[in-house]
Amino acid sequence: MRVSELVERSGTPLPTIKYYLREGLLMPGLSRGATRAEYGEEHVRRLRLIRALGEVAGLPVARIKLVLELIDGGGDLFGVLGAAVAALAPGAPAPEDAARRDYPRARAALEAIGQVYDPGYPAVAGLERALAAVDDAGIPMTPERLAVYAEHIMAIARFDLGAMPGDRARAVEYAVLGTALYEPVLAAMRQLAHQDIASKLLSG
Amino acid sequence: MRVSELVERSGTPLPTIKYYLREGLLMPGLSRGATRAEYGEEHVRRLRLIRALGEVAGLPVARIKLVLELIDGGGDLFGVLGAAVAALAPGAPAPEDAARRDYPRARAALEAIGQVYDPGYPAVAGLERALAAVDDAGIPMTPERLAVYAEHIMAIARFDLGAMPGDRARAVEYAVLGTALYEPVLAAMRQLAHQDIASKLLSG
Repeated sequence: MRVSELVERSGTPLPTIKYYLREGLLMPGLSRGATRAEYGEEHVRRLRLIRALGEVAGLPVARIKLVLELIDGGGDLFGVLGAAVAALAPGAPAPEDAARRDYPRARAALEAIGQVYDPGYPAVAGLERALAAVDDAGIPMTPERLAVYAEHIMAIARFDLGAMPGDRARAVEYAVLGTALYEPVLAAMRQLAHQDIASKLLSG
Repeated sequence: MRVSELVERSGTPLPTIKYYLREGLLMPGLSRGATRAEYGEEHVRRLRLIRALGEVAGLPVARIKLVLELIDGGGDLFGVLGAAVAALAPGAPAPEDAARRDYPRARAALEAIGQVYDPGYPAVAGLERALAAVDDAGIPMTPERLAVYAEHIMAIARFDLGAMPGDRARAVEYAVLGTALYEPVLAAMRQLAHQDIASKLLSG
């Protein structure tokens, strides 16, 4: 298809497509002369993916590029999965975390629930920050809450990985998109579950 | 305590405290003459709360003010809980949602799992947007995934509400903080659960 059709099919404006081509987020079309190029379904799909990572996962262009490079690139599956999910992690470690690099709350929580983890993984720093915040706010994590959350989050994660495609490139894409794009789904579902339960509690 | 001690105890710089006082986020101290005021534990606690809502929940000052007004204000518990949690919802409905105001995906999902919901609640628009994004990205919600997610999110939400304090003011504060501040905890736990399961799957 020509670029005009790509604009229409993807809903992405032409200047944005040109910007993505320049930045290397979108692979070039097949050249059909000096001013024409031919685009395919993979371009439509890639543009949707960029939009999803930007609008829903809220990633800046530089992080989107990093994730796309991991999807397109080589490397062993576990390493690539880890790096890709790490690139999605909300924010780098805060300065005080970087100074400590210890993450006592996250370590204690992960040991309590018996999980294998890489201490350098950004989600460990993220968990530490989030646990420090609930401490500060006066609603600290308790062993009971941790056990309940861990049980059900594990069940959700087990489903996620059980549904992972066997094909390597598709597996990485699935892991990255699934982690990034299902997070807002789960957050909205939790708020709606709160509403459902509260309405039943308070009316009863 | 004097303002200098409040700075030290809360870790909030003096210009920021003055800004919060001016904007009405922090209640004034007890006046001790023209240039002195006395602050208490409630000020330390409020400053931690503001920081948690800003840094962890990522709310801008105007939204933080709204949440604090709901915590401090009157109104029936269910209404206040709903309004407070709504104020936390990530972003207002997108323009195309506002035009449709229909949310077919969210409605179908909530009906499938049999939940009571208020169609005007921002989390419904949020769920619609998130479900549209996973559709676009080629990893659509399936009935099987929805059933698994709903079961476990409901169990988490049931724990959350079971632990809600009986006292009204504390209940609202708990609901607002719990929704906002435990979301990053759960997101980090899900990423770490993915890592735990992937490491076991790929090494086995």
